[in-house]
Amino acid sequence: MNLDKLQQWLQDSGNDVAFISNPITISYFTGYSMDPHERIFALVVFKDAEPFVFCPALNVEEAKDSEWDGDVIGYLDSEDPWGIIADNVRKRAKEHHNWAIEKDDLSVAHYQRLRGEFANSSFTNDVSPFIEKLRLYKTPEEIKKLQGAGAEADFAFKIGFDAIRTGVTEKSIAGQIDYQLKIQKGVMHESFETIVQAGKNAANPHLGPTMNQVQPNELVLFDLGTMHDGYASDSSRTVAYGTPSDKQREIYEVDREAQQAAIEAAKPGITAEELDSVARDIITKAGYGEYFIHRLGHGIGKNVHEYPSIVQGNDLVLEEGMCFSIEPGIYIPGFAGVRIEDCGVVTKDGFKPFTHTDKDLKILPLKD
Amino acid sequence: MNLDKLQQWLQDSGNDVAFISNPITISYFTGYSMDPHERIFALVVFKDAEPFVFCPALNVEEAKDSEWDGDVIGYLDSEDPWGIIADNVRKRAKEHHNWAIEKDDLSVAHYQRLRGEFANSSFTNDVSPFIEKLRLYKTPEEIKKLQGAGAEADFAFKIGFDAIRTGVTEKSIAGQIDYQLKIQKGVMHESFETIVQAGKNAANPHLGPTMNQVQPNELVLFDLGTMHDGYASDSSRTVAYGTPSDKQREIYEVDREAQQAAIEAAKPGITAEELDSVARDIITKAGYGEYFIHRLGHGIGKNVHEYPSIVQGNDLVLEEGMCFSIEPGIYIPGFAGVRIEDCGVVTKDGFKPFTHTDKDLKILPLKD
Repeated sequence: MNLDKLQQWLQDSGNDVAFISNPITISYFTGYSMDPHERIFALVVFKDAEPFVFCPALNVEEAKDSEWDGDVIGYLDSEDPWGIIADNVRKRAKEHHNWAIEKDDLSVAHYQRLRGEFANSSFTNDVSPFIEKLRLYKTPEEIKKLQGAGAEADFAFKIGFDAIRTGVTEKSIAGQIDYQLKIQKGVMHESFETIVQAGKNAANPHLGPTMNQVQPNELVLFDLGTMHDGYASDSSRTVAYGTPSDKQREIYEVDREAQQAAIEAAKPGITAEELDSVARDIITKAGYGEYFIHRLGHGIGKNVHEYPSIVQGNDLVLEEGMCFSIEPGIYIPGFAGVRIEDCGVVTKDGFKPFTHTDKDLKILPLKD
Repeated sequence: MNLDKLQQWLQDSGNDVAFISNPITISYFTGYSMDPHERIFALVVFKDAEPFVFCPALNVEEAKDSEWDGDVIGYLDSEDPWGIIADNVRKRAKEHHNWAIEKDDLSVAHYQRLRGEFANSSFTNDVSPFIEKLRLYKTPEEIKKLQGAGAEADFAFKIGFDAIRTGVTEKSIAGQIDYQLKIQKGVMHESFETIVQAGKNAANPHLGPTMNQVQPNELVLFDLGTMHDGYASDSSRTVAYGTPSDKQREIYEVDREAQQAAIEAAKPGITAEELDSVARDIITKAGYGEYFIHRLGHGIGKNVHEYPSIVQGNDLVLEEGMCFSIEPGIYIPGFAGVRIEDCGVVTKDGFKPFTHTDKDLKILPLKD
């Protein structure tokens, strides 16, 4: 169990207590997910005592009903949460001198409040790198959830392609996708805002869907994902509505070739930056290097963006169990944008994508 | 303009630079909204030089096209963002000794990276309290946006009430609300997950909608909101599906009386905790005090939860321009839950709600 690994790490690294503040990390270790807004939500783990979840009183019942079977301690809005945390730490742990915190997440304000309760303790150690590394290698259970999320993304593409017609807005297509995901698949959370971009709007990656209406003979870019049992999907497809021009077809085929080459190269032993180069070199040789303005990919798991980052300068060697996106893009301002993206897992037999929607250029017939 | 007030504050407080890291605060000052995921996104403001927005290269075009007409500096995934920030600060500001940071938001990791670039500077000052105070008083433009968001919530209730029938799941009702908000009102973001809870599920505040099916003679609780031009709505209504029992009717009427009394008392001069007591005393006298397990309300604006907190222990005097929720609730485990909630603004003539859906107990006829 992952929590045992964290306790082992505390012992090995000479730390007494880990203060886990990132709700995603808490969910990773406990199976209990919650958005605390501005309230305090934490998991406190000891090298040699029982851990506890700390949350607002109104979430205590929900936390106890969750997968988490350890202690849950609540606080009322009218109480001082930091005093309650300190009392409970002192009650259960003989030693609380060396604390490890999540430096990537803990705010300076909370850090200072926590330190204020333990004036003689040390808070210099960072548990974030250990957690990052632990989360980098997905277990078979995690991969199953990622595949489940991928299947929902494949379903979403079908709805989206079917919704394209002349004059329909990007927002309307996105809305139809989200609604059918809810009604047919029970998906309550997209992993990020469903993106639909037609024509030149697609030249601006990550621009949300607008009231722009799809016109004949445009490329339409979809980038979407769902949350499935606490794990994210994220996939992009670009399709032609009506007859594509030679130039539209060319940038599509270059991007497709770059993506395919990277998928084939994503095996244990290649580094993240080498993999980025596999795709980037193809796009650069075709003359579009300046239009590929982001990294090749990002890790995926409980977060839609996590480690490993598939980027120039990252010499991390990719290994079995690592999960990430492969998403080269070509964005030509004022003209069009293409992105093709699959997330998947590195295995000894190569990269296994979580999404399977066909990637030959799809040409959709015009519809009124 | 709010940014001028921040520059004035820097001068008055003896600070040279403010490092704004919270995307909501950046949006508040610049009108440019973005979710940077794990990338760096910041607004750097000087006491006597031009401010700049710092963001990933792939967002630069979007930032320049936004309401923000100041400088935008981008960085590639392969570059060191902290070095670029430091170079640009040194280029434009003669003095960069005293930094004010957002302690509520800035992570310990980013804080340490930033400090690393300016080893001889001071980072002890917190700009969060100033920003909180600035954001506490809404301008007429902000109130107009909050009213717009409220009107969308009123529309959502109509859709939700109409969707109730025997056997429909809470998730399906929530899905129909979100879809109609998108299609009919162009709403792309709810301010939080739309909550629909039937029968005893409503005794657990903030439990998301489940596959639980609505049954005759249950109370059904809705808690929902939208984002409208960067501002949130948040409102709750509880309705009876079929004939309510005497006990269901009683807890509804007690909660209704408590909410109405608090709305009438929410005038300039009362403190936050006094206002909480107005509602709490009514519920306690009726014998349900132990079932009102949260504060009376929370501030609302760009965040669905912000300041002021309407809670015991907060002696803040409420003033004109402050916006918050008034949402007493009664939650009886295993039986039912009631919450009635409106957000609004304090004016010299009293509290003006942003939502107007009727609050007399609504009894919906049974439908198959």
